[in-house]
Amino acid sequence: MSTAGQVIRCKAAVAWESGKPLSIEEVEVAPPQKNEVRIKILFTSLCHTDVYFWDAKGQNPLFPRILGHEAGGIVESVGEGVTDLKPGDHVLPIFTGECKECAHCLSEESNMCNLLRINTDRGEMIHDGKSRFSINGKPIYHFLGTSTFSEYTVVHVGQVAKINPDAPLDKVCVLSCGMSTGFGATVNVAKPKKGQSVAIFGLGAVGLAAAEGARVSGASRIIGVDLNPSRFEQAKKFGVTEFVNPKDHNKPVQEVIAEMTGGGVDRSVECTGSIQAMISAFECVHDGWGVAVLVGVPNKDDAFKTHPVNLLNERTLKGTFFGNYKPRTDIPEVVEKYMNKELELDKFITHSVPFSEINKAFELMLAGEGLRCVIRMDA
Amino acid sequence: MSTAGQVIRCKAAVAWESGKPLSIEEVEVAPPQKNEVRIKILFTSLCHTDVYFWDAKGQNPLFPRILGHEAGGIVESVGEGVTDLKPGDHVLPIFTGECKECAHCLSEESNMCNLLRINTDRGEMIHDGKSRFSINGKPIYHFLGTSTFSEYTVVHVGQVAKINPDAPLDKVCVLSCGMSTGFGATVNVAKPKKGQSVAIFGLGAVGLAAAEGARVSGASRIIGVDLNPSRFEQAKKFGVTEFVNPKDHNKPVQEVIAEMTGGGVDRSVECTGSIQAMISAFECVHDGWGVAVLVGVPNKDDAFKTHPVNLLNERTLKGTFFGNYKPRTDIPEVVEKYMNKELELDKFITHSVPFSEINKAFELMLAGEGLRCVIRMDA
Ligand SMILES: NC(=O)c1ccc[n+]([C@@H]2O[C@H](COP(=O)([O-])OP(=O)(O)OC[C@H]3O[C@@H](n4cnc5c(N)ncnc54)[C@H](O)[C@@H]3O)[C@@H](O)[C@H]2O)c1
Ligand SMILES: NC(=O)c1ccc[n+]([C@@H]2O[C@H](COP(=O)([O-])OP(=O)(O)OC[C@H]3O[C@@H](n4cnc5c(N)ncnc54)[C@H](O)[C@@H]3O)[C@@H](O)[C@H]2O)c1
Ligand SMILES: [Zn+2]
Ligand SMILES: [Zn+2]
Ligand SMILES: [Zn+2]
Ligand SMILES: [Zn+2]
Repeated sequence: MSTAGQVIRCKAAVAWESGKPLSIEEVEVAPPQKNEVRIKILFTSLCHTDVYFWDAKGQNPLFPRILGHEAGGIVESVGEGVTDLKPGDHVLPIFTGECKECAHCLSEESNMCNLLRINTDRGEMIHDGKSRFSINGKPIYHFLGTSTFSEYTVVHVGQVAKINPDAPLDKVCVLSCGMSTGFGATVNVAKPKKGQSVAIFGLGAVGLAAAEGARVSGASRIIGVDLNPSRFEQAKKFGVTEFVNPKDHNKPVQEVIAEMTGGGVDRSVECTGSIQAMISAFECVHDGWGVAVLVGVPNKDDAFKTHPVNLLNERTLKGTFFGNYKPRTDIPEVVEKYMNKELELDKFITHSVPFSEINKAFELMLAGEGLRCVIRMDA
Repeated sequence: MSTAGQVIRCKAAVAWESGKPLSIEEVEVAPPQKNEVRIKILFTSLCHTDVYFWDAKGQNPLFPRILGHEAGGIVESVGEGVTDLKPGDHVLPIFTGECKECAHCLSEESNMCNLLRINTDRGEMIHDGKSRFSINGKPIYHFLGTSTFSEYTVVHVGQVAKINPDAPLDKVCVLSCGMSTGFGATVNVAKPKKGQSVAIFGLGAVGLAAAEGARVSGASRIIGVDLNPSRFEQAKKFGVTEFVNPKDHNKPVQEVIAEMTGGGVDRSVECTGSIQAMISAFECVHDGWGVAVLVGVPNKDDAFKTHPVNLLNERTLKGTFFGNYKPRTDIPEVVEKYMNKELELDKFITHSVPFSEINKAFELMLAGEGLRCVIRMDA
């Protein structure tokens, strides 16, 4: 019996207030409206951004809210005007969208859609400014337009990537955010040539995905930089060949790297969110041709500061958002790279828990254990 | 009768001390040594860098010195080991070189040769650490390895571009420095696409050459920014379509430009040397795809400062040196662009004086009059 057009009652993990364990509740999920899609989520994984907005320090707290933005699922039904998706399609919801009509979507270079660019403050759907989630009629806020910590969710069609139905959703779900961000930062933006050296600042999940991009690009040396030496052992599995802990040296890490490489690395990718690491990542690239790419999300009051001669000596500084991928156009191809065994994902998935134990995933992340914990919705 | 192998006595304009008028003297010019070329200079033009090192404020003063680095001439004789130049070749001496062997010369992207990169402190030839100029046996220092304010000069072969002998040297001499720097900054580094908008900060000779690059690239709008409104009238001849004087607005000029262009220009090129202009030039480019290029030479203590979110929103920041041209490989092709009438140079040459009146060229530049003054050596 079709559920299209009906309210669906299902389980969701609701964040009632900041920093408190999520609680699994029965929620009502309204049918998708114009340009919306209702998706049955099968697997979702936890990213730092979920924890950050759950913790809600220094932000406008928006509760009760259903978090979650890395996931894989199957289209249950579609709203008016949706023509390129149909029930049964395998999809990844993405926290940033692609309307295919604005100046950014029409530009070959940008993925910062005017209509559907990430908006962490919005808790409702764009179409009518209302939530599709409720408990006994009282609305529950959305998160990033995805809210994947629910058996069913409603997402704008511009935030849905239709992927190969043969792809295992319990693996490719991690491409919804962190893995694509890091991998794309290297392959789409830093673009190392075969045989070049690459420094990766920050060896969390995003940085290791950037290292995976360097490995796939045929980098000759991948230098990992982290303040936390416990990150180094794990990073070896990701092709990182050398390690530098800035704390082990009494000069700036950019000078240490310049000495190791005869003047600087060819490319660097910063995946820490630390302003000091951003500056070091820029200043450690070789003059003449070096390219540095910033990925980490800085604090509000941070200032990037360098002597302009570092630029005049022909270094390039760029930043990227979601690895410069356009979610609908490009992410299906990244899934294909996984299917062709070009890109490895399994090594990023270090834990797995049933939906009922979603708070364990939060505990693991807060303890800094592992990279990605996949949450199984059917369990 | 050949002068090869002999000391040549000729006229040169000698700077005896900082800030004092040059005096035309008879000098001895020794024959070229290993990997050197002796050139008869026919035309030379004056650039701000000559005035800066003549003024010598806040530098190691190096006097007596023969200044000059924008010029055109003919090879008189070559030293040992020089195989790709011969007497009679038409050449432009260049203040920065290309050894064709170092990592920078072998890189497709860099023009910052390790051996022959600009060195403002060096007053002698690399080969033996000696000067080729003397007066009554007492050495006179070289400048930038070019010292073109002399009827004859000796230059390292790596700093000599061999050009089309049909090219008028009284015009193409300005390609030795400023015009190539500005033009290359736009066409090689900013690379605007046809129809895109470009902002040029600083409408001196370098900025107008950058505007010429934007015109040649088919830019739809060329927005000129300068603090000096007297620069605007002249800039109209260079395809600049709109003008902004930061002093006319009570908000940052980057905001003014963002309003004029619906979010920012596609490309910007900074040609001022002012750190404030560098920051504005970066922040005025559109998010998603904007590229800003820094050209101006900053002060020692300047710091480039911006919020990292301006980078994460997918703006690119680059700097360039000599427009990213490799002097020997690329400058002959820029001369061809002039010969094909793609690139206009005549409009940059606003004055001309005989060698005997070289100090007039200094006076014009100090008064901010005109763009380039060509000095005719035979007059
Ligand atoms: N731009 C985007 O689209 C996007 C998407 C997802 C995540 N991110 C950002 O990427 C960054 C990394 O995410 P993650 O999940 O891998 O985080 P993580 O916390 O797991 O890893 C960050 C690592 O950086 C290290 N680090 C911190 N300061 C450092 C310094 N000064 N020098 C060297 N190492 C340092 C930490 O020890 C840690 O190992 C975060 O800032 C996150 O917000 C950006
Ligand atoms: N990178 C290189 O290879 C290279 C080569 C030659 C020259 N340069 C540099 O290029 C720059 C320009 O050279 P030029 O000969 O055209 O100089 P110029 O002095 O003739 O022109 C500079 C212009 O910038 C304007 N200006 C100054 N501060 C400004 C601000 N804050 N906002 C807007 N406009 C401002 C001035 O009014 C002036 O019109 C200089 O810094 C020079 O050293 C670099
Ligand atoms: Zn769009
Ligand atoms: Zn995420
Ligand atoms: Zn070289
Ligand atoms: Zn010059």
